[in-house]
Amino acid sequence: MKISIIGTGTVGRTLASKFLELGHEVFMGTRNVKEKLASSAKDSYGNPSFSEWYKANPGINLKTFEEAALQGEIVINATHGENSVAALKLAGAKNLSGKILIDLTNALDFSKGMPPSLLPGLNNTNSLGEEIQKAFPGAKVVKTLNTMWCGLMVNPGMIGGGNHINFLSGNDQESKNRVKKLLNQLGWKDENLIDLGDITGARAAEAALLLWVRLNGALNTGAFNFRIVR
Amino acid sequence: MKISIIGTGTVGRTLASKFLELGHEVFMGTRNVKEKLASSAKDSYGNPSFSEWYKANPGINLKTFEEAALQGEIVINATHGENSVAALKLAGAKNLSGKILIDLTNALDFSKGMPPSLLPGLNNTNSLGEEIQKAFPGAKVVKTLNTMWCGLMVNPGMIGGGNHINFLSGNDQESKNRVKKLLNQLGWKDENLIDLGDITGARAAEAALLLWVRLNGALNTGAFNFRIVR
Repeated sequence: MKISIIGTGTVGRTLASKFLELGHEVFMGTRNVKEKLASSAKDSYGNPSFSEWYKANPGINLKTFEEAALQGEIVINATHGENSVAALKLAGAKNLSGKILIDLTNALDFSKGMPPSLLPGLNNTNSLGEEIQKAFPGAKVVKTLNTMWCGLMVNPGMIGGGNHINFLSGNDQESKNRVKKLLNQLGWKDENLIDLGDITGARAAEAALLLWVRLNGALNTGAFNFRIVR
Repeated sequence: MKISIIGTGTVGRTLASKFLELGHEVFMGTRNVKEKLASSAKDSYGNPSFSEWYKANPGINLKTFEEAALQGEIVINATHGENSVAALKLAGAKNLSGKILIDLTNALDFSKGMPPSLLPGLNNTNSLGEEIQKAFPGAKVVKTLNTMWCGLMVNPGMIGGGNHINFLSGNDQESKNRVKKLLNQLGWKDENLIDLGDITGARAAEAALLLWVRLNGALNTGAFNFRIVR
């Protein structure tokens, strides 16, 4: 399948490598391809520059936001939450229309100190997932994978035999079913995929981040997730 | 120990019965004792009236908010979130000062439809736990037990061998340690009690409710909780 990832940060890279390994055709979208490949600066977490990573992962196609979105049968939003709607507008509503748009981003607000909160207006009674669905009514937005460290997104078996949970929210049931199949390829078992209903379920999945960031501090690791006991 | 519960709803009753069974001296606070005992109306969930329950649970002492708070060595807030600060003001700051004040309440807002959200101003960058600590600076507020159905609060062993989690947040470490001992009496094992730090951790524990209410719908049961996998 042709999978396009909007955003070139750690999350986008982690997914891109994995989808390539699984045999998919992978596109990544960035604002300016030339600039992105010219920069050799490490990111703020000390990760290698994109160009260095890109050379080490041959087969991934770096494109503009627009070209990447045009190519993808499924598009994944892996931009920063505060920039997501703007980046997706550059990708172009017409290139997203009729497609599954997986949103795995959190609208984190670092401006009020650590740990981060959620951006004003994108929490409690609203969510980034809903905001994206409203901005791109032709896209079939599915919120998923946003409640964990990216290493677990593509390798749930890393902890607890893969028996921990991932949520899906979206208005289109068939799209959620297709995303489940893609998640299965990443190692997610159906019994650990919890459907939270329509896209307003993103309010719950995004609220989980407020707990995640505190647990990240309390447990001193990002390699954790939740299991439901009942 | 003398334990005072402010509020006479299902959560308060569940805790009161259990603490009595454990041998504690239990007080419950209400606005008007005479009225509370005179009413025979079932609550909106079809539970028996307080007076009926009270007769069936001899040994519990119903008092005014103020008298109950005065008696307690530990005071528990089990009122509705929107009324908590007002009810605790009636209990009296001087009767709470120097004492552990366990807050297990959620600031649920049902005014915007179901599932509920959190009250404006009491979410994301604030919480009911913090609001109570600010209103009663002399009290040692410990937020705990708010992330689950009350049946599990007093009987964690009901599911998963009791191996699921409960959070504690509060500014005073000694108070959190004392609350942990009380939780141990309810069946909570130390390894399942997660300290989220100071009272701002209540933002995380209260945000968990947004997820809880959706899972309650998706799983069709309230008898569930989270376990950490790592």
